[in-house]
Amino acid sequence: MDETDLIAWIRGHVPHAAGGDLLVGPGDDCAILRIDDERALAFAADALVDGVHFDLSAHAARDAGWKALCVNLSDIAAMGYEPFAATATVSLPRGGDPAVPEDLCRGLWDAASAFHCPVVGGDITTTPDGRLTISVAILGRGPAGGAFLRSGAKPGDAVFVTGALGGSIRGRHLRFAPRLAEAARLRAIGGVTAMIDVSDGLSTDLNHVARESGVGAEVNEAAIPLSDDARALADENASRTALEHALHDGEDFELLFTAHPDAAARIEREWDLETPLTRIGRMLDAGENVWIMRESGDRSPLTPGGFEHRL
Amino acid sequence: MDETDLIAWIRGHVPHAAGGDLLVGPGDDCAILRIDDERALAFAADALVDGVHFDLSAHAARDAGWKALCVNLSDIAAMGYEPFAATATVSLPRGGDPAVPEDLCRGLWDAASAFHCPVVGGDITTTPDGRLTISVAILGRGPAGGAFLRSGAKPGDAVFVTGALGGSIRGRHLRFAPRLAEAARLRAIGGVTAMIDVSDGLSTDLNHVARESGVGAEVNEAAIPLSDDARALADENASRTALEHALHDGEDFELLFTAHPDAAARIEREWDLETPLTRIGRMLDAGENVWIMRESGDRSPLTPGGFEHRL
Repeated sequence: MDETDLIAWIRGHVPHAAGGDLLVGPGDDCAILRIDDERALAFAADALVDGVHFDLSAHAARDAGWKALCVNLSDIAAMGYEPFAATATVSLPRGGDPAVPEDLCRGLWDAASAFHCPVVGGDITTTPDGRLTISVAILGRGPAGGAFLRSGAKPGDAVFVTGALGGSIRGRHLRFAPRLAEAARLRAIGGVTAMIDVSDGLSTDLNHVARESGVGAEVNEAAIPLSDDARALADENASRTALEHALHDGEDFELLFTAHPDAAARIEREWDLETPLTRIGRMLDAGENVWIMRESGDRSPLTPGGFEHRL
Repeated sequence: MDETDLIAWIRGHVPHAAGGDLLVGPGDDCAILRIDDERALAFAADALVDGVHFDLSAHAARDAGWKALCVNLSDIAAMGYEPFAATATVSLPRGGDPAVPEDLCRGLWDAASAFHCPVVGGDITTTPDGRLTISVAILGRGPAGGAFLRSGAKPGDAVFVTGALGGSIRGRHLRFAPRLAEAARLRAIGGVTAMIDVSDGLSTDLNHVARESGVGAEVNEAAIPLSDDARALADENASRTALEHALHDGEDFELLFTAHPDAAARIEREWDLETPLTRIGRMLDAGENVWIMRESGDRSPLTPGGFEHRL
C-alpha cells in the first residue's frame, strides 16, 4: 500500500465530512472552519522527511526549515487566506550534528518572519535512530464563504498559472516564496472560481481541479510558462523535454486557478505584481477529459504524471 | 544536545513572543490567538514516535492513534478550552503491515468522535525506512483572556489534581480520557488561577507551574492520590515506592491546578463529576522552593524527576 492508496482509503473512511462549523472538510488544500458569519479559519498540515522532501546530506537544514513552513503557507495562499500562526514538531535522530536542529529552527523562523506567520508551539522528540521529520500545521484566516476551493471551476472558465513551471528540483523546491501576495491580489481583483497550489505538478493538480469541479479542461502547450530550470534540466538530459518538466515536475508551489471569462480579462488588465501570470487554457464541460492542445492542432489526454512526494 | 537543551535553546531564541493577536506565546500547554474581544483560539501540536511514545511491537496501532489525538486534547483541556479541530501527519516506513496505518487512523477517529474534535486535514508520507511518526496539531476555542495559564498561581492558592497518579506505563498512557469535561466543569465553577496537564510527572509539572508563576509550592505526601497502577508497579519492583511513581512517572494526563483559597472550598463543595478531585497542597511565596511535606513533619525539595518523553 503506497500513500496514494492509503489516502484513497482514508477519503473513503474518514468519518468527518463538512457540516456544522466545518465549512470545508478534508480534501482541499486546507479545511475551512467557521468562526462566525463573516470570518473563517483555514487549517492544514504537512510533514517533510529527510531523504524524501529534502536531503540533509546535500541541503542546508535552514533551507529545510524554510521549506517546512512555506509548503504550508502555500496551502493557505491557495485558499486565498492570510497566514495567522503555525506549530512545528520535529523528530530528531540522536547523535546527529547539533547545528542541524538549530539551523532548522532558524529556517522556520526566517519564513515565519518573512510571511508574518509566527511559530507559536510544537515539540521536539529525540529518537534513537530514524529520519529527521518536521511536521508543520498552519492556521490562516479569511472571509467565511470566500475560500478559493478546488471544486468551484465552471465550463468556460479561463485557467491561469503564476510564475514558471518545472525543474524545481534544481533548488526552487526548497527556497521558494509562497504566493501569498499573489493570492491576496487576486482576491482583491475578484473573479477567481477555483484555486490550488502546484505541489504535485501541473498535470496532476489540474486534474484535481477538474475532478473536484466535475468538469473537463484543456491547456495549450504553447502557453505553458517554462522555467529556466525546466530548460536546463532538458538540456542536461534529453530524456524529458522542458515542457514535460513543466507539466509533470512537482513542487513548483505556483498558483493554478480558474476565473469566469469576464473576470479573466479584468485579472489580466489589473495584474500589477512582478510575478508573471499566464492564461494557459480553459475549463470544459462535465464529462470532458483533461487535454493538452498541441501546437500541431492535435490534442492528447493530460494524465496526472506528477510528483508523489519523493525526490 | 538532548531535547531539554534544545527546547531551552529554542525558548532563548524564538523570535515570536506574545503580542498583537498572539495573546499567549510558546511555552504554555497551548498558544492562545485572539479572534476578537470575546473569543480566542488555543493552538498546539505534539508528535508521537514509535518506540518512544508507543511501541508497535507491543501496542495496537489503534491505541497509538487514540493517544496521538488525546495527548493534544489534554493540552486543550489544560487551557480550559474546548476542542475545535485537529490535523494529523503520518510518516510511515515502507514495507510495514498495511493494517497499521488503517488502525492508526481508526484510533485517531475513535478519539475524534469521542471528544468532538474532527480530524480535518493532514498528510501521509511513506519513507524507505525510519520510525512511524504521527504528529497531531490541535485547535481549541474559548473565552479571550480566560485561558488557564501555568503562570497564574498566587501564594496561598490551593493545589489540586484530578484522578490518581503514577504507573500509567501499565496501559493508561495509551488509552486515557483527556480531562475535557473536568476542565469545563472547573471553568463553570470558577476560581482556577493556573492549570497544566500532568504529562511529565507531578514533580516536573508542579515545578513548571511554580516557576512560571514565580512562586513556591508544597504538596502533602499523604494527600497524593496513588493509582492502582502505581501500587502494582511498586509491588512488582521494590526499587520505587508507589508514592515515587505518583510523583515522578509521566503521562498521567490528569489536570494539576491552583485556586484561590475561597474558590478552593467552593470547588470542593460543588465538584460533582465521577473523576476524583484531590487537594494536595498550596502555593508558597516567591523565592520559596517546591517542597514535599512528609508525614513525619519534615519537608524535602520536590525536584523534577519526571518523564522526558522516553518509554
